[in-house]
Amino acid sequence: MANTSDVYKSLEPLFRPKTIAVLGASADPGKIGGRPVQLLKDFGFKGKILPVNPNYEEVQGLKAYASIKDIKEPVDQAIMAVPARMAVQVAEDCAAQGVKSIVAFTSGFAEMDADGEKAQIQLSELARDSGMRILGPNCLGVFSSQDASYSTFTASILDGRPKVGPVGIASQSGAFGSHCFVLARERGLGMRYWVTTGNECDIGFAECVQFLAEDEETKVILGYMEGCRDPERLYEALSLAHAKQKPVIIMKVGGSDVGAAAAASHTASLAGSDDAFDSIFDKFGVYRATTLREAIDISYACSFGVYPKTDRLGIVTISGGAGVVMADAAAEYGLNLAPMPTKVQKDLKELVPFAGTRNPVDTTANFFNDWTVLTKFFEAMLEKGNYDAIASFFTYFAQSDAMSEKLMEAIRPIRKKYPDRLMALSIYGTRENIAKLENEGILAFEDPHEVIQAIAALYRFRKGFSQKLPTPPKIPASTPSIPKKPLNEYDAKRLLKKAGVPSGRESLAKTPADAAKAAARLGFPVVLKIVSADIQHKTEIGGVVLGLDSQTAVRKAFNEIMARAVKAAPNAKIDGILVSKMMGGGVETILGTYRDPVFGQMVMFGLGGVLTEVLGDVAFKVAPFGRKEAMDMIKSIKGYAVLAGARGKEPADVDALAAALSDLSIFAAANADTLESVDVNPFIVREKGKGGVALDALIIRQSN
Amino acid sequence: MANTSDVYKSLEPLFRPKTIAVLGASADPGKIGGRPVQLLKDFGFKGKILPVNPNYEEVQGLKAYASIKDIKEPVDQAIMAVPARMAVQVAEDCAAQGVKSIVAFTSGFAEMDADGEKAQIQLSELARDSGMRILGPNCLGVFSSQDASYSTFTASILDGRPKVGPVGIASQSGAFGSHCFVLARERGLGMRYWVTTGNECDIGFAECVQFLAEDEETKVILGYMEGCRDPERLYEALSLAHAKQKPVIIMKVGGSDVGAAAAASHTASLAGSDDAFDSIFDKFGVYRATTLREAIDISYACSFGVYPKTDRLGIVTISGGAGVVMADAAAEYGLNLAPMPTKVQKDLKELVPFAGTRNPVDTTANFFNDWTVLTKFFEAMLEKGNYDAIASFFTYFAQSDAMSEKLMEAIRPIRKKYPDRLMALSIYGTRENIAKLENEGILAFEDPHEVIQAIAALYRFRKGFSQKLPTPPKIPASTPSIPKKPLNEYDAKRLLKKAGVPSGRESLAKTPADAAKAAARLGFPVVLKIVSADIQHKTEIGGVVLGLDSQTAVRKAFNEIMARAVKAAPNAKIDGILVSKMMGGGVETILGTYRDPVFGQMVMFGLGGVLTEVLGDVAFKVAPFGRKEAMDMIKSIKGYAVLAGARGKEPADVDALAAALSDLSIFAAANADTLESVDVNPFIVREKGKGGVALDALIIRQSN
Repeated sequence: MANTSDVYKSLEPLFRPKTIAVLGASADPGKIGGRPVQLLKDFGFKGKILPVNPNYEEVQGLKAYASIKDIKEPVDQAIMAVPARMAVQVAEDCAAQGVKSIVAFTSGFAEMDADGEKAQIQLSELARDSGMRILGPNCLGVFSSQDASYSTFTASILDGRPKVGPVGIASQSGAFGSHCFVLARERGLGMRYWVTTGNECDIGFAECVQFLAEDEETKVILGYMEGCRDPERLYEALSLAHAKQKPVIIMKVGGSDVGAAAAASHTASLAGSDDAFDSIFDKFGVYRATTLREAIDISYACSFGVYPKTDRLGIVTISGGAGVVMADAAAEYGLNLAPMPTKVQKDLKELVPFAGTRNPVDTTANFFNDWTVLTKFFEAMLEKGNYDAIASFFTYFAQSDAMSEKLMEAIRPIRKKYPDRLMALSIYGTRENIAKLENEGILAFEDPHEVIQAIAALYRFRKGFSQKLPTPPKIPASTPSIPKKPLNEYDAKRLLKKAGVPSGRESLAKTPADAAKAAARLGFPVVLKIVSADIQHKTEIGGVVLGLDSQTAVRKAFNEIMARAVKAAPNAKIDGILVSKMMGGGVETILGTYRDPVFGQMVMFGLGGVLTEVLGDVAFKVAPFGRKEAMDMIKSIKGYAVLAGARGKEPADVDALAAALSDLSIFAAANADTLESVDVNPFIVREKGKGGVALDALIIRQSN
Repeated sequence: MANTSDVYKSLEPLFRPKTIAVLGASADPGKIGGRPVQLLKDFGFKGKILPVNPNYEEVQGLKAYASIKDIKEPVDQAIMAVPARMAVQVAEDCAAQGVKSIVAFTSGFAEMDADGEKAQIQLSELARDSGMRILGPNCLGVFSSQDASYSTFTASILDGRPKVGPVGIASQSGAFGSHCFVLARERGLGMRYWVTTGNECDIGFAECVQFLAEDEETKVILGYMEGCRDPERLYEALSLAHAKQKPVIIMKVGGSDVGAAAAASHTASLAGSDDAFDSIFDKFGVYRATTLREAIDISYACSFGVYPKTDRLGIVTISGGAGVVMADAAAEYGLNLAPMPTKVQKDLKELVPFAGTRNPVDTTANFFNDWTVLTKFFEAMLEKGNYDAIASFFTYFAQSDAMSEKLMEAIRPIRKKYPDRLMALSIYGTRENIAKLENEGILAFEDPHEVIQAIAALYRFRKGFSQKLPTPPKIPASTPSIPKKPLNEYDAKRLLKKAGVPSGRESLAKTPADAAKAAARLGFPVVLKIVSADIQHKTEIGGVVLGLDSQTAVRKAFNEIMARAVKAAPNAKIDGILVSKMMGGGVETILGTYRDPVFGQMVMFGLGGVLTEVLGDVAFKVAPFGRKEAMDMIKSIKGYAVLAGARGKEPADVDALAAALSDLSIFAAANADTLESVDVNPFIVREKGKGGVALDALIIRQSN
């Protein structure tokens, strides 16, 4: 299958160049214009290296050109290692010459000052107008390990090239990207591409992910992200990765307030709220890593390409203690430690009388004299126990070549016989011995807990791959628009009712007589509430009276409320008093929307009361979304059990709740340009089949 | 200061032997009786090695004795590497000979079968009667790195001896203890003692911790624990460690159900509930590690002996990205990223115009030409920023000897000038270059997140050391005892009221007239409840009627309740009907007690409703405890804000709540031998100054 998307085609010369020009090439490999020449030469880049420097005939033994204009052949990629003041001119020359892409190491742009920002905009415009793609500026470059196209000036690579493998790494930070590269290399991670995006004048992080998702040889995507400029592109990239069943592991930083401030000060990217990122990662099945170690470990696990079909995990160890550690971790990550079949347990006991045989299985150290015992244990677990993943503890066996070899002999036949099962070890030893295990398709981790964490991640990916991504709901033509005037509670509820968020029977009364008549029509008891777009805290000013059960009481309350409102807010425009039938029972929830600076309209959901206000047990999702997604959102909060019928209550009408949430998200999306926020609090969810009802609602328009 | 406790004195010959006999000494270093002889010889044990084997004149070049009886000099420690069938006899010979301690490698005891268990009991009795201490059986041994007394048969040590340092390691698992040793050694952890306790026929984990706490040269204690046999000893050990300001880091496993089952099947130790362990670790300031990596990392950090005085953390990096990662982590662990003083920020900007100067401080890569810039940044942060800890990111600088040296030169003066400040780096490189940093007192971690996690742990230890441990409250003679009869609600409340858990005004009525009279006396409205020790679910059978506001209503309700109770539970002994004044307002809480199999009486506290029942937001504490500890417990739940006055409510009377909890804990401790459980649900906490009141209570006696 050919890769044919426009994005792929435009980025291919950058990621897989056949000809690389180095603008500002230097004879000194310690300089940013010298390092890539050295790397490309020494590490065996098969394509052409064309140094450009007007001051030299030759650079590091290669013929040098005075200018890009002197190069008469097609150039896939030009490395820009010239001073910032020359950058725009040089880029223009490249574009004129038909250069397909630039890797701009040069710094001194938006990260520096206003002049730099102006120059960066010129680069953006040049890229847009010419079609020449630009990586950076102010970036550490890009490489393809397979092609040895090391267009980077990171010194980290001097200590060792990476193992060629299926992982593509994209980072918005150069230094952090290098650190990631080093730790990944030392971890034995097989990587194919590595790219740092710098100031992103043209090529952004999301586009790199898109390239990696489309590239046939890349199987795993590891990203470091500080912000997002182009949410649509990110959705597209993640959607493609999902379609191609490629796991995406992202370390998204700046989640804390102080972290976000630090991120904002050092990149120009908008952060977007952390809730929005979580919602998007969740939707596309992205694994969000907290630490770099975790990000690399999970990518490492994915690079083996074996994803357990079920959550059935078998643990077999040579130490009871390690079994307990792994069992605890399995419980933490929700894996299923199904016990071994009783009959098989008996067989194993005959083999090793004091073995633990349930699961975790403990072979004890009895196999030291006969390693085939180990083979038999593994065989029993995979064949009879039918586990889709096996986690095993062999402590420091890989320190010794002899032990390593025996272990390999014992488990190699099993690895070969069950290629679709995952085999992951907690084992310590020399890189060489570990590499031998890895080459057979066996995963190795030092820490027993981390083995289990990785297995859980692999299973989660498999589950995610098997599920179709939700298709965004259509926005019906009938979705109401927000009028250009302040909306009082009555207006807001009517608008939301049209949008699909139900509210109860109610009437806006202008006089005590109106109110009394309405109450009689609605049925007692009723509640009266002041209606004014200028009064948002109705209760505080005595603008709400509950439990009125006669026309007389209603008339009296009408007058009292009016008097209090006029006193408390003499300048408020009062639209009347709302008469509503009182509702009993049901579960109190809160629905709302707000605007995220990057991802736009977001919907919020939580239970009312302490759960939302004290514990912050709420869920967020980018609008719009359908009912199935709304249901996932409802089930994701900790307090979901209350809706499901905890504490002896009737199960609540979560279908109606999901419909309201989805419809609210569609309403928000349809009014994305004018809506600031919606607050439906409370939204009462009644018993199954009885629907839900908004008791209060507030809609705020954007102020501009 | 001399170490003089009896425990210390009795264990000193084990931990620091001058003469070691090896019973079952072998010429083959691959055998368990040969390995220690080899290790003691090769690694330079300065004391005497006395091989014992009747079949040889000489073992590994050392004169061999036919029997322990032939050794005419005092033996501190005898390694037992003989078959299980000989173990008891050999141990008895040792005791008769005055051997001070045995390290019993021999397996085949309680972990194997009933005969083995019997033999193990003989060993226990021998130890108790003779005063000779026994480690194991079925253990991997013990070593002191300083004395090179490697009385172990773990092969792990053949790959390298540990760095001598301040950490003492105690493990209940041999294989896991070895794995811990290997990873700790490779991490560069300086360790002094390592001990594995095996079947614990005599010496238990807690006693080892106690020895390490008392030992002057041990500064940090790292433990792996599966269960606890002797809670009092553990309290004593942890209390001593606290008094000596020694951090204790414990990886306690078996926290999950399946993990606990696995632990129970492979050791004989009782697990104790995880909540109880958490409560104890919390009390003594123990750091509970989830992963082995975390346990080793935190121990490593502690081994430097610098504990930040405050939570003020300065971050200085050469990469904005790493700064964001560290800032996120600082937020997660609650460290204070106070900004640099404005004036100093200006100075730094003059030094490096594009530096980030707030905190995180980003030097950018500008110091490569002048490393004194780095010195100036560090100086400014410690001198003017006044941070007690500095976290810094230098990526893979330690890969290069030259870069390492420059970095050392730049920061060494700072390290020397501010010895009481913590300096921790995220840096990758060769072990040699990392060791140079460590030797200067600078901490090194690969992962930037993990630097911050460690700093937070160090600060937490410092805070813990500065606080006195709570003294257990006295149990007053007036504490009521539980009578030997089933207790109905009325009895339970009266008993608890005597114990210090208040309940409201109420009266037990036998007739409708009694009830009506009582109601008039108490004041309306009242609630009526059936009282019978045989009926625990009163509400379900219609045994509770609320809101009665007249004598007529009370008489009617009395008869109805009685009729329903007789119908629902014809055989129940009915003691009458409880008339209580109805209470309004306040915050609903739940107090309770239960028995932990290891730690005894435990007190539980939570808010009523969803928080406890759905979210499990509850706190536990081992009884008894005082009011200050009770207050800590109250504040530890997530829903504490509700009591503190969230959602516009009055703050609740938490002092009264703390008093009730503490008094309940004293009541439980005083009745430890007869009490099964107490359930006070709900306990209403009223407004500040108005106290609390138990609305319902259930006390259950132990069934034996």
